[in-house]
Amino acid sequence: MEPGRPGGSRPAEPGPLPRGVCGAGPAASASSLSGAEAQIQRCALAVAAVLPAGGRGERMGVPTPKQFCPILERPLISYTLQALERLCWINDIVVAVTGENMDAMKGIIQRYQHKRISLVEAGVTRHRSIFNGLKALAEGQPDAQLSKPEVVIIHDAVRPFVEEDILLKVVTAAKEHGCSDYDLEFGTECLQLALKYCHIKAKLVEGSPDLWKVTYKQDLYAAESIIKERISEQICIVMDTEEDEEHVGHHFEEMLKNELNHVKVTSGSLCHPGRDLQQIILEQCYNFVCVNVKTSEFEETQKLLDVLKESNISILYPVVVISVHFLDHKSVPIGQEMENLMQIREFAKEVKKRNILLCGLLIYYPQEKQKLQDSLRQGAIIIANLIKERNSGLVGQLLVA
Amino acid sequence: MEPGRPGGSRPAEPGPLPRGVCGAGPAASASSLSGAEAQIQRCALAVAAVLPAGGRGERMGVPTPKQFCPILERPLISYTLQALERLCWINDIVVAVTGENMDAMKGIIQRYQHKRISLVEAGVTRHRSIFNGLKALAEGQPDAQLSKPEVVIIHDAVRPFVEEDILLKVVTAAKEHGCSDYDLEFGTECLQLALKYCHIKAKLVEGSPDLWKVTYKQDLYAAESIIKERISEQICIVMDTEEDEEHVGHHFEEMLKNELNHVKVTSGSLCHPGRDLQQIILEQCYNFVCVNVKTSEFEETQKLLDVLKESNISILYPVVVISVHFLDHKSVPIGQEMENLMQIREFAKEVKKRNILLCGLLIYYPQEKQKLQDSLRQGAIIIANLIKERNSGLVGQLLVA
Repeated sequence: MEPGRPGGSRPAEPGPLPRGVCGAGPAASASSLSGAEAQIQRCALAVAAVLPAGGRGERMGVPTPKQFCPILERPLISYTLQALERLCWINDIVVAVTGENMDAMKGIIQRYQHKRISLVEAGVTRHRSIFNGLKALAEGQPDAQLSKPEVVIIHDAVRPFVEEDILLKVVTAAKEHGCSDYDLEFGTECLQLALKYCHIKAKLVEGSPDLWKVTYKQDLYAAESIIKERISEQICIVMDTEEDEEHVGHHFEEMLKNELNHVKVTSGSLCHPGRDLQQIILEQCYNFVCVNVKTSEFEETQKLLDVLKESNISILYPVVVISVHFLDHKSVPIGQEMENLMQIREFAKEVKKRNILLCGLLIYYPQEKQKLQDSLRQGAIIIANLIKERNSGLVGQLLVA
Repeated sequence: MEPGRPGGSRPAEPGPLPRGVCGAGPAASASSLSGAEAQIQRCALAVAAVLPAGGRGERMGVPTPKQFCPILERPLISYTLQALERLCWINDIVVAVTGENMDAMKGIIQRYQHKRISLVEAGVTRHRSIFNGLKALAEGQPDAQLSKPEVVIIHDAVRPFVEEDILLKVVTAAKEHGCSDYDLEFGTECLQLALKYCHIKAKLVEGSPDLWKVTYKQDLYAAESIIKERISEQICIVMDTEEDEEHVGHHFEEMLKNELNHVKVTSGSLCHPGRDLQQIILEQCYNFVCVNVKTSEFEETQKLLDVLKESNISILYPVVVISVHFLDHKSVPIGQEMENLMQIREFAKEVKKRNILLCGLLIYYPQEKQKLQDSLRQGAIIIANLIKERNSGLVGQLLVA
């Protein structure tokens, strides 16, 4: 387990793992596997998941079924799929959706590059949908690539915050105990379904408060806040002023590290293309502060944007980029300077299509030393807020500290 | 009932009612009273409310008990009290808090100017707390001003979004049916308590989805989003450029009205002190855009801030004020202009103490007409976002459109 997580559990969503890599996080090497996880891998236990997602969301008070409601512009169900697919030991994920949402669901899988997903048609009830999913697994349908699993996890499409520990517990319990009388008495009928039609073992396992279900409109607000909080834990500062150690950019970097002590502030470099920065992107940092030495030019920012666009890091979450410029008190006619800085709107509009949220920050650089400190501190506060709120409405704006 | 509300119910919180006025909203004159409300008033039915608030918030995962957790910097319980106290027909509100929180609770009542509230000591369980509250009502304790009610509403301190309709339904049912067998079988023991010790009638009434309870940390996020949404429905533009109809400020006003078509945009005036503006404040508008004709002066904004400070409107909710300035492309040396504009930090720091969130917005005024339209549109977007997010971290900042 990773240290410092409440309850010691490792969130399967949206953890700091690069796309296409399986496991619980950067620390999840073979030696750090938990007992249960190792057991599943050792026994080559075949595990699959079924997600009933045929709900129509009547209680939500919005026309879109809740599993398709957007959180940071991505449908809720994509977060749940992300949470499951990153666990290597789940072989197949079968999603049951209604016929009318089948194409939309295919679009979601393609756009967010989900893997190991099969779709089946939902039934008129939740139980029928689960049955259809189980049947597909038992019969190796729909694409003949599904293999019959020993354990099936049945997971609501609207519970995006499922932790790996809970899923491991479910699978271990299912493997060890099979289905008990307790389950039959107090569990839902899903257990009976699984038993009756598929000869697959099932058991009811206690969840955690984090395993909550998005049911009402207010739950969407809550989910968005939680996700925003999780992807705001790390900021990378990119600056290329090695030749001038006394540049105000370095003072600003120091200020950021002092003021934003609740987040991890790292420094990336674009001078040796890709070296540091690629590693930081690989660790899923979603927040970048780019310091431009020349007031009204965007050279450094453009290089950073190119690297980010190439990395595809913004497929799953909006990436915040803040382009910092220093406005010297000696600056004379403002006209040309402002016209240049206003270019940021065009850059921002273009990268917004790639889910990158670009803002400008103009730090006023007055003569007086104390006032400069104030400017730098205000700049740090603005950056903390832009990252925390991740407000796509402020894209392309210039802020002044 | 007001038109356009889902389900036709009128929210008791945080509706657009001025402090000290009772009723369901601006439309709640005697003629628009619902049948139930009129009945209560006609019969002079004595109604009181008991709020058990002795919980320790173990499930919340935060050290503060949930009823005292801040939402927009105000404790949750204050929102619940606000929802109840604005209903004239509730005579007394008795809150049961633990001894250790008694002083904090007194502080909350004083700071947010709550009325008709009595405090009793909470018991070790929720039931004991309710019992203590009922006992105080039955015995006219603790301050000998409480009168014995005919109906008592027992309401969780952590359900801030209670609607007047539900409460009317509760009271009417209690009055008409007394306590049925159904309640005794399926209701909580609270009903039995009420019956056994106080000879007061009680009945269980079905709630609505809005009547949800803040239980976990995610519920606080959700409550904050809902409250922010509700207080962002109206914006008032203050401008004093009557002498120059062609001023860019008027174009900006037009742009705001076009772009922010989801909110009600009204215009206030400071020329005839208090006339329009006082009415708007009375209707509980929490968002003000103040257009300053002279680029780097804050004359208009300061007048507005004085009016707002005097009105006390920011006691319950943070009020957003955006001070708008136009930056002409002809502006030459920026030094002095910026030094002046940076004064906003000091103003903002001062009014923040009064729960007023002041930001600056610098609208770049270029030579080209199309670019000016872009600037004005961007300005409108910034304003919409500042109001929606109500981010106290951006206080004192200058934004550039």
